[in-house]
Amino acid sequence: MSEWQFIDWIRSRTDAAHKSGPKVDPVILGPGDDAGIVTLQPETIAAVDMLMDGVHFELDKIDPALAGRKALAVNLSDIAAMGARPVCALISLALPAKGGLNVGQKMMEGIMKLADEFDVSILGGDTNSWSGPAVISVTVLGEPLPGRPTIKRSGARAGDWVLVTGNLGGSLGSKRHLTFTPRVKEAAFLNTHFELTSMIDLSDGLATDASHIAHESHVAIRLDPAGIPVSPDTQNGSAAQRLAHAMTDGEDFELMFTAAPEVAREILGKQPLAGVRVTHIGECVAGNPQLTWRDGTVIEPRGFEHFLD
Amino acid sequence: MSEWQFIDWIRSRTDAAHKSGPKVDPVILGPGDDAGIVTLQPETIAAVDMLMDGVHFELDKIDPALAGRKALAVNLSDIAAMGARPVCALISLALPAKGGLNVGQKMMEGIMKLADEFDVSILGGDTNSWSGPAVISVTVLGEPLPGRPTIKRSGARAGDWVLVTGNLGGSLGSKRHLTFTPRVKEAAFLNTHFELTSMIDLSDGLATDASHIAHESHVAIRLDPAGIPVSPDTQNGSAAQRLAHAMTDGEDFELMFTAAPEVAREILGKQPLAGVRVTHIGECVAGNPQLTWRDGTVIEPRGFEHFLD
Repeated sequence: MSEWQFIDWIRSRTDAAHKSGPKVDPVILGPGDDAGIVTLQPETIAAVDMLMDGVHFELDKIDPALAGRKALAVNLSDIAAMGARPVCALISLALPAKGGLNVGQKMMEGIMKLADEFDVSILGGDTNSWSGPAVISVTVLGEPLPGRPTIKRSGARAGDWVLVTGNLGGSLGSKRHLTFTPRVKEAAFLNTHFELTSMIDLSDGLATDASHIAHESHVAIRLDPAGIPVSPDTQNGSAAQRLAHAMTDGEDFELMFTAAPEVAREILGKQPLAGVRVTHIGECVAGNPQLTWRDGTVIEPRGFEHFLD
Repeated sequence: MSEWQFIDWIRSRTDAAHKSGPKVDPVILGPGDDAGIVTLQPETIAAVDMLMDGVHFELDKIDPALAGRKALAVNLSDIAAMGARPVCALISLALPAKGGLNVGQKMMEGIMKLADEFDVSILGGDTNSWSGPAVISVTVLGEPLPGRPTIKRSGARAGDWVLVTGNLGGSLGSKRHLTFTPRVKEAAFLNTHFELTSMIDLSDGLATDASHIAHESHVAIRLDPAGIPVSPDTQNGSAAQRLAHAMTDGEDFELMFTAAPEVAREILGKQPLAGVRVTHIGECVAGNPQLTWRDGTVIEPRGFEHFLD
């Protein structure tokens, strides 16, 4: 199959998806031209993530559909963390020359199934083959929720409470990193009904990601060790070891967000929120942008990071 | 250097670029959050291309800055082919664990230098390291020129003339594929002053790309072999061999476009157009969507394609 036939196969799938919906499609031009065209107003919100075989998934162990699913899901999580609505995605693939057609089609099946669940259209892409391992890069474009602001990492204020959705830790061991539900609906519910001051999705581990909020918002963040919702996936080990997993394993793709105490109390009173539990894990306080436990012990921003040399 | 320090380095460079311009920046939020935010109206035009070491460039032979430059340039060429204006780019990188920092920084230097030349901002990205070869995926977002339509592959009509910018063939051998100027300014000039009916950028070779226009527009395209602007880069070989190179080498990144005869004549009368020569190479005629020479010989849509099995 040539690259162009592969594009035709994607078009046949995405054309059908476009036709199935009763609502107005914001996608004006889908795959098959030099570029795609979409109507996004008043702002375009864009996130990109690249996933590589052997690093973010292992094709010798899993269905490639799960790798494709994850590549879209991590981007939906990023758009959710802005309090925004994902609309469409562009997919670029590097596929192994041998067996790449099967891998590519399965990846696209995984992508398109999740895209359908979240009403996301395929706007375009680029397909390549080579002698290296499979690589997927997904760009998701979104737009603000009607009449609502986007939620940045920089808006937390001293006094705000720190909340988190779901449970943390053990995502890689339990394969949750391949099957997690991106918190698009929960973020939309939160941003529609409450004034959040900042939000981030937990991709690198709470210790690292909470530090990003602290640094971007110029506040200190004080966490309650007893308050961290440690996932049952962090099985085995002492309570301290399980807490360490919850803080640093990464790939939870839950939301951490901040709000004024009265808003936070109201959110906590509506449990479960869109089906997901929200936990109060700490507070923002005036001071140098760092992360501590409530007793003042500094938490190092350790988690998953790509180191370059 | 950690991934986050790499992002900080990019932010320090892009912040400076943002501050240097006197005009209103459409980028509302750049690198460093879960997603970037940009104002693009009335439509968002998006293109993506993935380039891999050993396929689209060879890092053991060239400065990585040229690989980065090419990754952005091919996308600017796609946006140009829509008759649109590129505004911002998202960059995802897979870098080799050994020496990847140097490669990544040089790639970003090449990207940012070309971005500055075309007033394109860096909206966001994703940086990874692995044991595989370097991969760059660039997504460019653009917007229509004020008050002008976008130009699709599907608008050519029987009777239209077929025109092309620049010279074709020999791009890979001459390294022009690394240093070409994307025809952003030329496309803007054309779309601002003339009614074009279709346009495509020549990435896979004229034989393949003209076929795309024929198929999307449901017209036959008849080319004049004597009219094809064969590049001096197709040195050696007979005239027929050099013509074959012009038709199939690919990676020229010139524009092929169609317009009504009276419009085409006016364009040809304004030579050189924004500094680049435009050549009349053929016509669209009613009939099955295929490509022929004027004598009726069918031209097979051969050119560079990634084959998948």
